[in-house]
Amino acid sequence: MTRNTFGNIFTLTTFGESHGEAIGGIVDGMPAGIEIDMQYIQHELDRRKPGQSKITTSRKENDEVKLLSGVFEGKTTGTPIGFMVVNKNQHSKDYDNMQKLFRPSHADYTYYYKYGVRDHRGGGRSSARITISRVVAGALAKLALRQLGISIHAYTNQVGHIELEHDYRSYDLSQTENNMVRCPDAEKAEKMEELIMEVKNAGDTIGGVITCVVKGCPAGLGEPEFGKLHAQLGAAMLSINAVKGFEYGEGFAGAASRGSEQNDVFINDNGKISTENNHSGGIQGGISNGQDIWFRVAFKPVATILQKQNTVDIDGSPTVLNAKGRHDPCVLPRAVPIVEAMTAMVLLDNYLINKTIQL
Amino acid sequence: MTRNTFGNIFTLTTFGESHGEAIGGIVDGMPAGIEIDMQYIQHELDRRKPGQSKITTSRKENDEVKLLSGVFEGKTTGTPIGFMVVNKNQHSKDYDNMQKLFRPSHADYTYYYKYGVRDHRGGGRSSARITISRVVAGALAKLALRQLGISIHAYTNQVGHIELEHDYRSYDLSQTENNMVRCPDAEKAEKMEELIMEVKNAGDTIGGVITCVVKGCPAGLGEPEFGKLHAQLGAAMLSINAVKGFEYGEGFAGAASRGSEQNDVFINDNGKISTENNHSGGIQGGISNGQDIWFRVAFKPVATILQKQNTVDIDGSPTVLNAKGRHDPCVLPRAVPIVEAMTAMVLLDNYLINKTIQL
Amino acid sequence: MTRNTFGNIFTLTTFGESHGEAIGGIVDGMPAGIEIDMQYIQHELDRRKPGQSKITTSRKENDEVKLLSGVFEGKTTGTPIGFMVVNKNQHSKDYDNMQKLFRPSHADYTYYYKYGVRDHRGGGRSSARITISRVVAGALAKLALRQLGISIHAYTNQVGHIELEHDYRSYDLSQTENNMVRCPDAEKAEKMEELIMEVKNAGDTIGGVITCVVKGCPAGLGEPEFGKLHAQLGAAMLSINAVKGFEYGEGFAGAASRGSEQNDVFINDNGKISTENNHSGGIQGGISNGQDIWFRVAFKPVATILQKQNTVDIDGSPTVLNAKGRHDPCVLPRAVPIVEAMTAMVLLDNYLINKTIQL
Amino acid sequence: MTRNTFGNIFTLTTFGESHGEAIGGIVDGMPAGIEIDMQYIQHELDRRKPGQSKITTSRKENDEVKLLSGVFEGKTTGTPIGFMVVNKNQHSKDYDNMQKLFRPSHADYTYYYKYGVRDHRGGGRSSARITISRVVAGALAKLALRQLGISIHAYTNQVGHIELEHDYRSYDLSQTENNMVRCPDAEKAEKMEELIMEVKNAGDTIGGVITCVVKGCPAGLGEPEFGKLHAQLGAAMLSINAVKGFEYGEGFAGAASRGSEQNDVFINDNGKISTENNHSGGIQGGISNGQDIWFRVAFKPVATILQKQNTVDIDGSPTVLNAKGRHDPCVLPRAVPIVEAMTAMVLLDNYLINKTIQL
Repeated sequence: MTRNTFGNIFTLTTFGESHGEAIGGIVDGMPAGIEIDMQYIQHELDRRKPGQSKITTSRKENDEVKLLSGVFEGKTTGTPIGFMVVNKNQHSKDYDNMQKLFRPSHADYTYYYKYGVRDHRGGGRSSARITISRVVAGALAKLALRQLGISIHAYTNQVGHIELEHDYRSYDLSQTENNMVRCPDAEKAEKMEELIMEVKNAGDTIGGVITCVVKGCPAGLGEPEFGKLHAQLGAAMLSINAVKGFEYGEGFAGAASRGSEQNDVFINDNGKISTENNHSGGIQGGISNGQDIWFRVAFKPVATILQKQNTVDIDGSPTVLNAKGRHDPCVLPRAVPIVEAMTAMVLLDNYLINKTIQL
Repeated sequence: MTRNTFGNIFTLTTFGESHGEAIGGIVDGMPAGIEIDMQYIQHELDRRKPGQSKITTSRKENDEVKLLSGVFEGKTTGTPIGFMVVNKNQHSKDYDNMQKLFRPSHADYTYYYKYGVRDHRGGGRSSARITISRVVAGALAKLALRQLGISIHAYTNQVGHIELEHDYRSYDLSQTENNMVRCPDAEKAEKMEELIMEVKNAGDTIGGVITCVVKGCPAGLGEPEFGKLHAQLGAAMLSINAVKGFEYGEGFAGAASRGSEQNDVFINDNGKISTENNHSGGIQGGISNGQDIWFRVAFKPVATILQKQNTVDIDGSPTVLNAKGRHDPCVLPRAVPIVEAMTAMVLLDNYLINKTIQL
Repeated sequence: MTRNTFGNIFTLTTFGESHGEAIGGIVDGMPAGIEIDMQYIQHELDRRKPGQSKITTSRKENDEVKLLSGVFEGKTTGTPIGFMVVNKNQHSKDYDNMQKLFRPSHADYTYYYKYGVRDHRGGGRSSARITISRVVAGALAKLALRQLGISIHAYTNQVGHIELEHDYRSYDLSQTENNMVRCPDAEKAEKMEELIMEVKNAGDTIGGVITCVVKGCPAGLGEPEFGKLHAQLGAAMLSINAVKGFEYGEGFAGAASRGSEQNDVFINDNGKISTENNHSGGIQGGISNGQDIWFRVAFKPVATILQKQNTVDIDGSPTVLNAKGRHDPCVLPRAVPIVEAMTAMVLLDNYLINKTIQL
Repeated sequence: MTRNTFGNIFTLTTFGESHGEAIGGIVDGMPAGIEIDMQYIQHELDRRKPGQSKITTSRKENDEVKLLSGVFEGKTTGTPIGFMVVNKNQHSKDYDNMQKLFRPSHADYTYYYKYGVRDHRGGGRSSARITISRVVAGALAKLALRQLGISIHAYTNQVGHIELEHDYRSYDLSQTENNMVRCPDAEKAEKMEELIMEVKNAGDTIGGVITCVVKGCPAGLGEPEFGKLHAQLGAAMLSINAVKGFEYGEGFAGAASRGSEQNDVFINDNGKISTENNHSGGIQGGISNGQDIWFRVAFKPVATILQKQNTVDIDGSPTVLNAKGRHDPCVLPRAVPIVEAMTAMVLLDNYLINKTIQL
């Protein structure tokens, strides 16, 4: 069941709600013998945490993770890794006025309809706060991928109408973390930040696009017919809160073009089979071909705006929502590590599965 | 394992290669007591079959499906439905000259790298011919969904640069099957056909976009955190051959907009909770909200073009591919029923899962 | 993957080692709206806890469970229930002399061989201490089953050579908890206790058999061909530490008999289809038939004995193990609630799956 | 979902009913590059087929298997292997008088109750005829295991009250196929055959026990906590028609003994860590330890007897069943290859999974 468990061999099962006791999960299938770098894991979480800059929510949540099992003398044992982040700074009262109404474009209505329960505190299980577990599991996956020479580089490619002009090959991706919007183009980053501040001051929110690049991925990963690598990546991305679209390689733009333009011609690159171009995005027939993998993920604007909105209450009566509290005007900067984390899990999972193809 | 099995409760497991004995599969979890309409199932397959019009490949494959189990006295028994389509008109010789080389942007190289085997005949397992099984399983799912009042309407929305100007609400979707390109706008359809013929005559191919709309879907379907309904739909679409992108609701376009524009305000529609707009695409927080579900799927141009292309052979030596045979200049018209089939499977599966949420 | 996750719809994923920070798990698929009785859950855990009587280990572990998510205002929300029991009274030093050797008939050697890691502290992940998570999840399942009128009754049927003379129909199963060995026959219970004390004083251990009876189970549960109800129950029981055998209905004894003796003749019992006998154990063709389900589970004697034993160390050199510490002379009394917990999980899971058979 | 799919990485999904068009399945996860020996596969099926000797049913079903995919130039390609056995000699008329009644201790009632459908022809999906698919998949698994030096030896250990006196180490298992009852002790075999003939002539049936031994299994296979190797083997065996019990190593007998007797002392056997005894049955903590794996499987007597039996019909009215036709008096001889097949699948699956434990 693809419910609260993600993956096949390397799996993450999660628990927790925005205002519950704790957020956490269990990673199963983590290979044995991997060195655990707790500082690195916490650092990944810090990239996601609220309050890290003026363009994120001002909520202060120093999310500290604790591994509860699966590690012995600094190395993984091959048994499940339980982990937990205690919820500390939850202001349930901010949500008191929402107890009986459905916030527009949030999951309030659909959760209530499906489960028959209304946990109004901060979105409950539907809150993006539960992505904490993904970042922890992704950090574990990255520690394993590092040993394989696989690295993942996500960055903010677009905020509102401000968009990078070139594809990832034109940028120095090591610059991504140098600005608060996480964009490798410093100039564009500044404009994006300005836009986010403008939107924030208007009590509004704004969407955007994240690009993700995988370098060093070996050929052979992916499990057709249904577990094509890009299908798994797509499902992973689309499971992130606020994501509305996924494309890899040339994606939607390529749909307008011709085969003679799109095809990636094979070449012999000093004894290694390679391709002249990479319109395919590093995946052919659902299997990695050894080239860079690249894809794009579209995020809608955050649904919570600080403007009055019409809506209905639990009984269906019209009412007005006047949201308060501390919210993100733009989810992109904090979503970059989440995109990387999900990518890392998919890649490690597929790396492990691929070992079973040969006796 | 998400390998050759799709779904959770209602599942399809497939087998077969382009030039093997047969293509087929097993549907498990089909509810008991559903009336089987063989004519309908065959009709769905006919919508997919090659040679159905001048804009598809001229290969004649009268794919006839036979159900081998799971049906007794015209109704499903709740046990697995095995089915098979015998391969008849395979010209393996068309591929003789490809035995030792890798066709650009096909899966030849990645399959060979992963499995260590080169089944050169028509793409082997990576051929789009294996989507036959999806259409059969999708037709079975549709027979069940029909009883629930859920209907699915896919159509060609874009071919190359020719694109419908409005969203699905502006068209009479019952017109889709009235032209060979499967587009509800007759005028645009003609232009699309012209473009496909032009491309075909140039020995080239062209991509495009399919839109899919679900009507009558009840609220409550979808399984967060990882089995969000749109994540499952996305994975389903991305598993179809040649698909490069997926977006639902406003998708990538919505990423450029603001929360105040994107939010779907709840209203009371004669006693039923509804939304004023449907930017969300009928899904909120990963769960259907009772509105129309709509999404878009991008297809790249077919990789086989009838022009000379540089490539390398199995040993990495440069060579030239001169493809022959009968191929589709544009995959969209035949992909419409496949998009519908995958959608049907996801919806039925989620309908069944959702029954387990309450005791 | 059947690794550290159990079940299909109602699932338990576990983490933790004997001497780690905590033991815990995540229950997914718990139906929404079930009232949570924390006292009941803790009571179930107390039935399993060490030190509860003179015939169990004298270790004092007041295992207190905390639910971390999935419950709101006293009722389940349909989202995952994370839970945890902090490890408190672990004496890792008791195991210092075992750091480099393999205890006979323990999992020390096989874990080391498989994972390449040696967590010598109390058996690590292979310790029966991790069954804590099963008892918690089983208690949750029982709370749901209670609403369906399904009840589960396990008891100690045999210790060493002392065995109950009759089958479960001859005993008042409400008497099971009245003695420390958990046997409904008070006289036999006394003899079993004496035997356990005798064995304990000899520094030895002893095995036995638990019988489990399910009452009120509706017909129709079980998922052939591979998910037959008894196959699922068998897998569940065999996954419990120290279990060596499983049989249901007449089991091994029935193998010696004839069809004319074993067959359960159908009768009409006041308008309800029933059977005259119940040799089948309440399951036919892998599906419950509405009669009592009954089965038996064989436990080997605990591997840790307080006698000198020959063995080898990590390098394969012969050495002598002289185990110390506080250990159970007989696992049966504390295993009764574990057998019930696993049974409860299987039944609830199958109850939920069975809802998907009809549209 | 453990429904009609078995396994994790190496999986078998099945379809078919006793009197349907065909019996078949799909094997997924078969490693690439394995040589396919069709004669061997057919030979395994022949060991299972009806009418092979006077002590089996006299039905003649020359079950011929055809592989439909997944093999290219004599070797597996790593893609799914579809296969099929056409049903030929089905006498549906033999079952006409059973159309409206429930045969005692068959699955007629439970299937009808669960699915709401009554396929009366030969037991429909609940017939042991569907184990054909298991034997085919098991033969494929054996072809892979052969390359790993793992061999599986099942034999009839008990029929009715006639039982082998010693454990497997006392017999030459290569003698098993030399008699029609498949027992390595020729003298006992004769007595078993006599008993079966006597029972057959009385229109009755008889049960028994099969022992299975695995030689050459490497240490390290098995996936605790829930996928313990013996739990997987137990589930596999219990899923076979008519199986009522499973035990491994000393099993139920060991439950009566003491730790000091049961423990397997580790020794250094010429540089290899081994055990002095093998009470454990080759598995410790759910993981193979490199010793022989051995277990026992109890079969009840076949439910169809050629004697009058009371029962009820679909409406619950009392009636009398007078079964006719050609049936097995004892299922053991034909079940030996099925036990081996299931064992092979479990072992190959676990061999493949185990490759993912290390990076």
